[in-house]
Amino acid sequence: MAETMTQDKVQQLIAALEQTPTNLHNGSFLITWRNPAEHIRAVLLVAEALQRLNRAGKSVRLFDTGLGISIFRDKSTRTRYSFRSACNMLGLMTEELDESTSQVSHGETVRETASMISFLSEVIGIRDDMFLGEGNRYQAEVAESVQESFEAGVLAQRPSVVNLQCDLDHPTQALADLRHLIDHYGGVENLRGKRIAMTWAYSPSYGKPLSVPQGIIGLMSRFGMDVSLAYPEGYDLVDEPVEAARRFATESGGKFEVVHSMAEAFKGADIVYPKSWAPMHVMQKRTELLRGGRAAELKELELAALAENARHKDWECTEEMMKHTRDGKALYCHCLPADITDVSCKEGEVSASVFERYRLDTYREAGHKPFVIAAMILLTRFADPAGTLRHLATRDMPRRLA
Amino acid sequence: MAETMTQDKVQQLIAALEQTPTNLHNGSFLITWRNPAEHIRAVLLVAEALQRLNRAGKSVRLFDTGLGISIFRDKSTRTRYSFRSACNMLGLMTEELDESTSQVSHGETVRETASMISFLSEVIGIRDDMFLGEGNRYQAEVAESVQESFEAGVLAQRPSVVNLQCDLDHPTQALADLRHLIDHYGGVENLRGKRIAMTWAYSPSYGKPLSVPQGIIGLMSRFGMDVSLAYPEGYDLVDEPVEAARRFATESGGKFEVVHSMAEAFKGADIVYPKSWAPMHVMQKRTELLRGGRAAELKELELAALAENARHKDWECTEEMMKHTRDGKALYCHCLPADITDVSCKEGEVSASVFERYRLDTYREAGHKPFVIAAMILLTRFADPAGTLRHLATRDMPRRLA
Amino acid sequence: MAETMTQDKVQQLIAALEQTPTNLHNGSFLITWRNPAEHIRAVLLVAEALQRLNRAGKSVRLFDTGLGISIFRDKSTRTRYSFRSACNMLGLMTEELDESTSQVSHGETVRETASMISFLSEVIGIRDDMFLGEGNRYQAEVAESVQESFEAGVLAQRPSVVNLQCDLDHPTQALADLRHLIDHYGGVENLRGKRIAMTWAYSPSYGKPLSVPQGIIGLMSRFGMDVSLAYPEGYDLVDEPVEAARRFATESGGKFEVVHSMAEAFKGADIVYPKSWAPMHVMQKRTELLRGGRAAELKELELAALAENARHKDWECTEEMMKHTRDGKALYCHCLPADITDVSCKEGEVSASVFERYRLDTYREAGHKPFVIAAMILLTRFADPAGTLRHLATRDMPRRLA
Repeated sequence: MAETMTQDKVQQLIAALEQTPTNLHNGSFLITWRNPAEHIRAVLLVAEALQRLNRAGKSVRLFDTGLGISIFRDKSTRTRYSFRSACNMLGLMTEELDESTSQVSHGETVRETASMISFLSEVIGIRDDMFLGEGNRYQAEVAESVQESFEAGVLAQRPSVVNLQCDLDHPTQALADLRHLIDHYGGVENLRGKRIAMTWAYSPSYGKPLSVPQGIIGLMSRFGMDVSLAYPEGYDLVDEPVEAARRFATESGGKFEVVHSMAEAFKGADIVYPKSWAPMHVMQKRTELLRGGRAAELKELELAALAENARHKDWECTEEMMKHTRDGKALYCHCLPADITDVSCKEGEVSASVFERYRLDTYREAGHKPFVIAAMILLTRFADPAGTLRHLATRDMPRRLA
Repeated sequence: MAETMTQDKVQQLIAALEQTPTNLHNGSFLITWRNPAEHIRAVLLVAEALQRLNRAGKSVRLFDTGLGISIFRDKSTRTRYSFRSACNMLGLMTEELDESTSQVSHGETVRETASMISFLSEVIGIRDDMFLGEGNRYQAEVAESVQESFEAGVLAQRPSVVNLQCDLDHPTQALADLRHLIDHYGGVENLRGKRIAMTWAYSPSYGKPLSVPQGIIGLMSRFGMDVSLAYPEGYDLVDEPVEAARRFATESGGKFEVVHSMAEAFKGADIVYPKSWAPMHVMQKRTELLRGGRAAELKELELAALAENARHKDWECTEEMMKHTRDGKALYCHCLPADITDVSCKEGEVSASVFERYRLDTYREAGHKPFVIAAMILLTRFADPAGTLRHLATRDMPRRLA
Repeated sequence: MAETMTQDKVQQLIAALEQTPTNLHNGSFLITWRNPAEHIRAVLLVAEALQRLNRAGKSVRLFDTGLGISIFRDKSTRTRYSFRSACNMLGLMTEELDESTSQVSHGETVRETASMISFLSEVIGIRDDMFLGEGNRYQAEVAESVQESFEAGVLAQRPSVVNLQCDLDHPTQALADLRHLIDHYGGVENLRGKRIAMTWAYSPSYGKPLSVPQGIIGLMSRFGMDVSLAYPEGYDLVDEPVEAARRFATESGGKFEVVHSMAEAFKGADIVYPKSWAPMHVMQKRTELLRGGRAAELKELELAALAENARHKDWECTEEMMKHTRDGKALYCHCLPADITDVSCKEGEVSASVFERYRLDTYREAGHKPFVIAAMILLTRFADPAGTLRHLATRDMPRRLA
């Protein structure tokens, strides 16, 4: 019975996918707002289908052998394991390029390394979010390099490049968040008119990337939602995603606003996403100082940034603040780990009681990421994704062999 | 012919397993002496069956995809590779959580991390043996966390937690040692009445965990053996395993004694296990000082502990000492690496000539660990272990495909 | 059509392999010049067959489960990924022994560790090229240790040891280079009479291993080629490979010369391989000082070596230098990463324009390595390599399952 329901639902997802022409085969997935609506829709459909098949005990393995390479230029728990889980469920063995034990520092160029790790690779996942203006450029360079080597016949296949967070976007996070909202509201069509508050929040740390808020506004604005972006004066985001959000809101019949009050953004919100980030000008300065190796000035910058942050400690998602939301019961979202007041820090982004109430929800939210990444791999590596999914749904291959 | 013998023996093991009701499915394996006799017996039966099938060239793969996560908070060669080998033989890809490159230090709680690495995981193996009173607690917390997430539907499956050594027990070691004795004596029933000397031995290092001697006395006492625990005054073990050993000895018709002379323990011994450990009070003090970051006092403690150790250099397993054992030919056991006099140190736990005579035996002893760990995974992840084994034994799936 | 051509070609390779008796089963692959011609030929045939099957979309997986262990005592990108790719294509999960997190430093002997990581392992790949006189010895010791444990029944199978670069040879590199030349010239028989210039080149770094030039002259001299080894006075290689090259040249009807001018070596060359290495006497001194922990003298040695190097900056593969080669169009080879003037350093081994013209060729060259390593594993782990290949060629097992 449960299996029949899974099969019916998966067949519906496949049918919808057949109506969603994509151009992702032999390509990469880097920035959501530069991708057409069909690509976003396809990722959502495939991610859900894979998740349902997995829950039903079916193997979704698509490769007998092959590698998935990860490059993490910043710390990661969730995304690292999500990438590995995604590769594993599809049958790829993962390997992480550790730049400290490789010869990358030894005069090797990016384009050279890209090919050297790709001879039998199907996907390269990259996190590079530390320096404004660099992460996306690096990922694009890797993608161009494997494309060149593939076209020249050096590589037998063209590995996808998947953005596991850059300076601009965090697409696997934003799409996992979106999958969570779709599940929560029972369908993407039910997001229409829902108000989401993507707000800055206080944190005792400094230098957090801008990619999460940029990813959220650049994605959620495509579904007729009422997107409110809130931050203290000076904590502006990069122009491109803000302009994309404005355009998408108009096109989708939704709304997009920028305000400078957490309470105002929370007002009537169905969903809140309070999350710290660094002011863009701080990130720019930091990038410049780091490049120049100017340690003393970096320390000064950090102190100044922390002092500036500290002026906005009232940007905390407290029980009081939550009362502004629809019926006081907005869904709290976070990419984790959150800075929780009295738990992980003295004063942070969210109060302990609010976080605890939504804790398991944030785990559910995170649980979509492996399937979003797997969907990106499937869509970039298989020419007929609907046919591939149909094969997975109908073949007799359980995840457990006994 | 050889294959028929393997099949017959494996069928006997499966038949015995069917008579051994266990309650391990969807659980964990943390401390042997807190587990009923049936659980211990089941691990021994499954480990032997897996080893025999492997030696006969059969694949014992049970998962088409899935992850095994390891967390090592202390150095490891044997146990790390045993865990990886166990996962690999069952079809799981392994990943090690490296806390330095994850966001674990970044305000993340244990229970959060536990779920974040578990979305597609079947087992989490943990070594955490540095601080008295902490390792077992940490493992239990991870187990509770994945249990909570599984019950809430956040996780599609409930990963087992397997204790790869904590402050209290080292169950995969002790059970591998037991498998070695069973093989050596031709059956668990032949252990009855055998005398085993679990003794302290001198080492020029300090701070070695207590979990091996505790694991040995807490396990070997369950089989009617004559267990002699020997150590210099002051090198006491934790109460719980000592009390368990005393109780088990009574219940199983064996003996348990604590003496303060290596020669006395060796007297008439069939098996000797000379191995250094730190006095409990040193470990407690060390934990306290480490927590307080009191470096100067730590150095003092180390010097005092080494000086105390040095008073007991006569606790060495020499040829002379071996003469006290039954016919001078007791089986020498060690968890490795041993501190071998004139090989790995100037003065150590065992003389070079004794060690060399038993060197390949200690390798055999170590060789049981992958199968013990695999048995724990099988028993915790499969509801009908005997049926699962029967499937492995009868299906036509070789380890090599050509 | 393409598939039929692949099948025909692979059948020819298998037929040739059947005429090539080898003695590699249950052995290791350490030094090319100590192996008979049949072993070299077999590696070339198997590597090409595996590459063709892979390009044709066939899975070459031979193991259902099993481990491949790597030990890197020096940095690596290409070889590390090649080893992992080789293991993955054959169905082995790879694990890297990280000596800093293992107990190797903790009194563990090489022979003990070798067995501890081998209980379910099929291959151990080792890079140990830092100290002259040590790497090969270490690899041989590991091989002897697993042999002893296999013979004693401690190990159920005898893992191969594969030399991923030692102080003497870099066989997976040299054989990948040879596969590249065979592809480039359309057959090993077409190498006869071709002139190859293996020359020293200037680099602003110091302490590069001698194993690549030694591997090249010790291998290329076996196929009737005209091998010219060129280096500034004082940059001598180890005797053994030089003597082997001289002997092989005579036996194969080729030539071998040592000259002290890059231009002279390049004269009429079909292939050039300009690559920096350290003078042998510097490597010997360095090994001695490193062992003695003599930091100040090490710094002096480095400065002296760099100053000596700097006297030979004219040993650069420039456009001008290339004009000496046959029609000015010799094939440029390099093991990568190259020290490229104005790209990875101010003055280096090769000018930017020469390198750029051959850049994709050097990637192709590198792309052979995974298949060379896989061939070594297949030949050492399977008793009937031709039969094994025939099975791979005829079974219906695609690399992608959908």
